[in-house]
Amino acid sequence: MTGSVVIAGLGPGDPSLVTPEVTEALDQATDILGYIPYVRRIAPRAGLTLHETDNRQELDRARHALELATAGHRVVVVSSGDPGVFAMASAVFEAVEAGPTPWRDLDIRVLPGITAMLAASARIGAPMGHDFCAINLSDNLKPWALIEKRLRLAVEADFAIALYNPRSKSRPEGFVRALDLLRQCCEPERLIIFARAVTTPDEAFRVVPLADATPDMADMQTVVLIGSSATRLIARPGRPFVYTPRSVPE
Amino acid sequence: MTGSVVIAGLGPGDPSLVTPEVTEALDQATDILGYIPYVRRIAPRAGLTLHETDNRQELDRARHALELATAGHRVVVVSSGDPGVFAMASAVFEAVEAGPTPWRDLDIRVLPGITAMLAASARIGAPMGHDFCAINLSDNLKPWALIEKRLRLAVEADFAIALYNPRSKSRPEGFVRALDLLRQCCEPERLIIFARAVTTPDEAFRVVPLADATPDMADMQTVVLIGSSATRLIARPGRPFVYTPRSVPE
Repeated sequence: MTGSVVIAGLGPGDPSLVTPEVTEALDQATDILGYIPYVRRIAPRAGLTLHETDNRQELDRARHALELATAGHRVVVVSSGDPGVFAMASAVFEAVEAGPTPWRDLDIRVLPGITAMLAASARIGAPMGHDFCAINLSDNLKPWALIEKRLRLAVEADFAIALYNPRSKSRPEGFVRALDLLRQCCEPERLIIFARAVTTPDEAFRVVPLADATPDMADMQTVVLIGSSATRLIARPGRPFVYTPRSVPE
Repeated sequence: MTGSVVIAGLGPGDPSLVTPEVTEALDQATDILGYIPYVRRIAPRAGLTLHETDNRQELDRARHALELATAGHRVVVVSSGDPGVFAMASAVFEAVEAGPTPWRDLDIRVLPGITAMLAASARIGAPMGHDFCAINLSDNLKPWALIEKRLRLAVEADFAIALYNPRSKSRPEGFVRALDLLRQCCEPERLIIFARAVTTPDEAFRVVPLADATPDMADMQTVVLIGSSATRLIARPGRPFVYTPRSVPE
């Protein structure tokens, strides 16, 4: 039996956003590995071993997946959202590059999923409808100075900006600093969207001008979308529409 | 009968990348509107009217969708990839904002899809695995100077960069200028991925260092991924893996 590693994106939460390609891979798997809450989204069945591991165990999890595949298992490593966006795909390739040469010959495939910022964007309109960027606000794996530099340049480029992992219990200060920086660079009316637990039963949206944004509006289940200078709000009963026009006048 | 407008993403091409949510919306539609090649991906059936329109007709198409919904139709506007990424969602909200007030009360929903850059990233590894941005290289709706400014700042921020619509018959020069700019700002070894017709039978990938990249490697079916300075290539038989590590050392 030939083993394989599939790194699959489960999307933001709603099962109707899981692609058929990912569903098929999960159905064929002998082993599923991932962070505890993501593995818990998979229904147990005979012939399937579920391996739940904690956050920050990404490289160990990747190596385990590659070892199981070498032994002939059909392994699926699950990420929420898209595995190529601040998730497990890079960790697996880091492990491949640093690992034994035969790992390079394994059948390794990445199956994309709906990533949080695009799910959030869809649910509120089209705030990422023009040029945009995505920044991971966690400084666990990169210096804070680089995050700040990227955020400053992204505002200068007038991108719409998605901030992943804006705030956690162990990193309460980063998002405070990010908001301070935004207040230095952007007008107070700049639209900020706090999109929490998108497409799950706990989904919650807040749209506020930068002047009214406060750090407690974000947590680890939140993706923060920052409009470009051109992003517009259409008021209506209930949740407004927020979108960025396709055109920038000369 | 209450009408509705759903703006749905068909993903990059492979039917197994269409979300069940989108499939359900297509099954319920009375009318499907979109650019000719996208509408041709939908199977005709009784009770469904297919409205194919040409490129650059986005606002007319959006208004038509809103008029049909006002008359009680269940309309689906289809985009390739994700409708919120350089596609129809922003056009619909532009039409809503400029249109009659009752359009704001319509049932309008955006259903996300797998966008080209993340499908391409998945098929080659994880080049967008760290902070990244997406830039539409078409200057049909924005000044070229802004594109050049954004590209320059994106390189300075050391983002991985996805270029959508890099080159068309009517705009052969933009990508030439973009490559010139990249050669001024980046080292010659910078990895460039040309991903054409991703997940379709015509899929083709080329991975070259910037020094070897030429304008003819891109066309309108290509998304171009530019690695960050940290992006790495893992050589192996056949298509290599390309990925951006999660860590940036201090």
